[in-house]
Amino acid sequence: MGFDPDSAVFRVHEGGKLVVRSTLPLVDRESLSLAYTPGVAEVCTAIAEDETLARTYTWRSRLVAIITDGTAVLGLGNIGPVAALPVMEGKAALFSEFAGLNAIPIVLSTTDPDEIVETVVRIAPSFGGINLEDISAPRCFEIEQRLRDRLDIPVFHDDQHGTAIVVLAALRNAAAVTGRELSQLRVVVSGAGAAGVACTKILLAAGVGDIAVADSRGILHGGRQDLTPVKAELSRITNRAGLSGSMKDALAGADVFLGVSAGAVDEDTVASMAAESIIFALANPNPEVDPEVAHRHAAVVATGRSDYPNQINNVLAFPGVFAGAFDVGARAITENMKLAAARALGDVVADSLSAGYVVPTPFDSRVGPAVAAAVAAQAHDDGVATIPLATTP
Amino acid sequence: MGFDPDSAVFRVHEGGKLVVRSTLPLVDRESLSLAYTPGVAEVCTAIAEDETLARTYTWRSRLVAIITDGTAVLGLGNIGPVAALPVMEGKAALFSEFAGLNAIPIVLSTTDPDEIVETVVRIAPSFGGINLEDISAPRCFEIEQRLRDRLDIPVFHDDQHGTAIVVLAALRNAAAVTGRELSQLRVVVSGAGAAGVACTKILLAAGVGDIAVADSRGILHGGRQDLTPVKAELSRITNRAGLSGSMKDALAGADVFLGVSAGAVDEDTVASMAAESIIFALANPNPEVDPEVAHRHAAVVATGRSDYPNQINNVLAFPGVFAGAFDVGARAITENMKLAAARALGDVVADSLSAGYVVPTPFDSRVGPAVAAAVAAQAHDDGVATIPLATTP
Repeated sequence: MGFDPDSAVFRVHEGGKLVVRSTLPLVDRESLSLAYTPGVAEVCTAIAEDETLARTYTWRSRLVAIITDGTAVLGLGNIGPVAALPVMEGKAALFSEFAGLNAIPIVLSTTDPDEIVETVVRIAPSFGGINLEDISAPRCFEIEQRLRDRLDIPVFHDDQHGTAIVVLAALRNAAAVTGRELSQLRVVVSGAGAAGVACTKILLAAGVGDIAVADSRGILHGGRQDLTPVKAELSRITNRAGLSGSMKDALAGADVFLGVSAGAVDEDTVASMAAESIIFALANPNPEVDPEVAHRHAAVVATGRSDYPNQINNVLAFPGVFAGAFDVGARAITENMKLAAARALGDVVADSLSAGYVVPTPFDSRVGPAVAAAVAAQAHDDGVATIPLATTP
Repeated sequence: MGFDPDSAVFRVHEGGKLVVRSTLPLVDRESLSLAYTPGVAEVCTAIAEDETLARTYTWRSRLVAIITDGTAVLGLGNIGPVAALPVMEGKAALFSEFAGLNAIPIVLSTTDPDEIVETVVRIAPSFGGINLEDISAPRCFEIEQRLRDRLDIPVFHDDQHGTAIVVLAALRNAAAVTGRELSQLRVVVSGAGAAGVACTKILLAAGVGDIAVADSRGILHGGRQDLTPVKAELSRITNRAGLSGSMKDALAGADVFLGVSAGAVDEDTVASMAAESIIFALANPNPEVDPEVAHRHAAVVATGRSDYPNQINNVLAFPGVFAGAFDVGARAITENMKLAAARALGDVVADSLSAGYVVPTPFDSRVGPAVAAAVAAQAHDDGVATIPLATTP
């Protein structure tokens, strides 16, 4: 670790990880006069008269802005916009490699939510969609909501919704492997940040029986006076069992542990869970429950790591979500579209489920098209599509 | 003209003209773990500790933001940000094809100078340089100056300085062809917008004898009460001859006509110029002086059109200017760097000058490297370079 210019990691990062290239050769007077002046003026004039033509004659309809202020980067915290850039470049590379979409990192020199919202609104005509990334909670909730209200293009905070989609897909399959329905599960979520909030909401929307959410001070419940507005809302829609106390208390007899917090859980607590328990310990690089310990007690174990089975990796969701939304010119990404994405993602492996295979691997080429098709169809059902579904090729 | 989806122009624009691609294959667990998590965290941490490492390990040091609000697009005027996008994509394609640089269009939903400046400052950590494009005068002057004051990366308004560099290079060579020095020339500039102001300033800096600038109401002089601050400044530094009246009056006996306005000039007026006159009629697609008429009276004629000799095309300047600035990590583009670019550009054809060849053609592969080398060297001389000049390869 540390800065070693000769290491493999630093060598692959030399010069950055992205290039922008022309799709047209500009090699002679004729090609220049078509792609640039004077020819381009015809295209500009046509779009000025009918802005919907921008969809066909510019690149923006398949272009994602990856927006961050660098306040919550990976597990590194608030490292600022410039140090966040390698992650954002990597994300853009994933959009390209996994969905054939164009994506650009936009890292911001402000952390003020008003300024972030105004800035994104002002640059939004450049883009087909907005992917918020690594913006700290609770600011991320407000920023996303205000941008959704202001813009008529998809706005998606991947740390929330990408994680939530993959968790839901994996949990539904994990329940199936253990012979249960989502409605029969009592879930404990450790962490009430971006991922914890979004996972809780999508699991409730998908019909999970009861969820207790714990932050670093314990279980969220109506009696707590120290809750942010977002946590107070969570306390109202969760914890039907009326639990209070620590996460350890909540886990006694619980069916599912979902860790999105990095807070470690000891073996005795894991052992106190219900039979056939399900443990999703997603902190990276150190899962909340040691995978060896988890496997001693749980029926299904998932982590965020690529070196264990059942990797919960957002790349299973965001490329297909944006591709599907772009395919039909969706004005937004609805809650139903996220649920549809999760359903399609889980269904990819439905025929070959096992305890060690509740979610596809990141390089499963069936995932992107399946998620995109489900998202596009749901956008139509939800009335947010602006162009017809493609006919079968 | 008009919208014809089957025409060559619209066909080449389908899907837009740019792609963003990963420089690394992300095909397996190992490549993903180097370019993205967990490997990327090492790079982020290193940059957080030493931001200068961003130069080597991100793409931004060779990335240009092409910024417009769509208020002065080509000859089309204020067509808005979305309709401007095809031009900005074309510009980005030129950066790629002519200098191997990455460039991204950022089109803005605001035309307020304060908001434009704040927006660009907030997204600036994403980029290595800012190319302002097609922003109407006089707002463009204030926006550029304020961004230069606020940012420590190159800021360059191409409609001003790209044009000015190419005009200076061509005019110096045109003077040489006719056996004169710049200092012997009396120049009339028609147009006091972005290009007119910048051309006037660079020609004065290069030693042109006297310049009269005319806007649509006539020659700028100290007695006029209708001048914007920028034009008032021009009136103070130009027109040593103390002319007043119309552009037609100014052209009598003048050596050079420089048209950057689209205002037509009739043949009698052209005939009233000095012997061995030089006519640069740059309006597109219709030059201020009909090229046939110009050739009847002038020794050297240049236009903005690719179908006549001596095309004044900004692509001769901006790729090399940014490439040279990036090569040495320049914190700004100084006036001397623009003069050096013009000198290098003109020198490319110094050995083979003729009346029909005072400036290289756009596809002359010697241009970009020559301009870049001159700009980089001058950045060092001006103390704005942050890294050493590359040693001879």
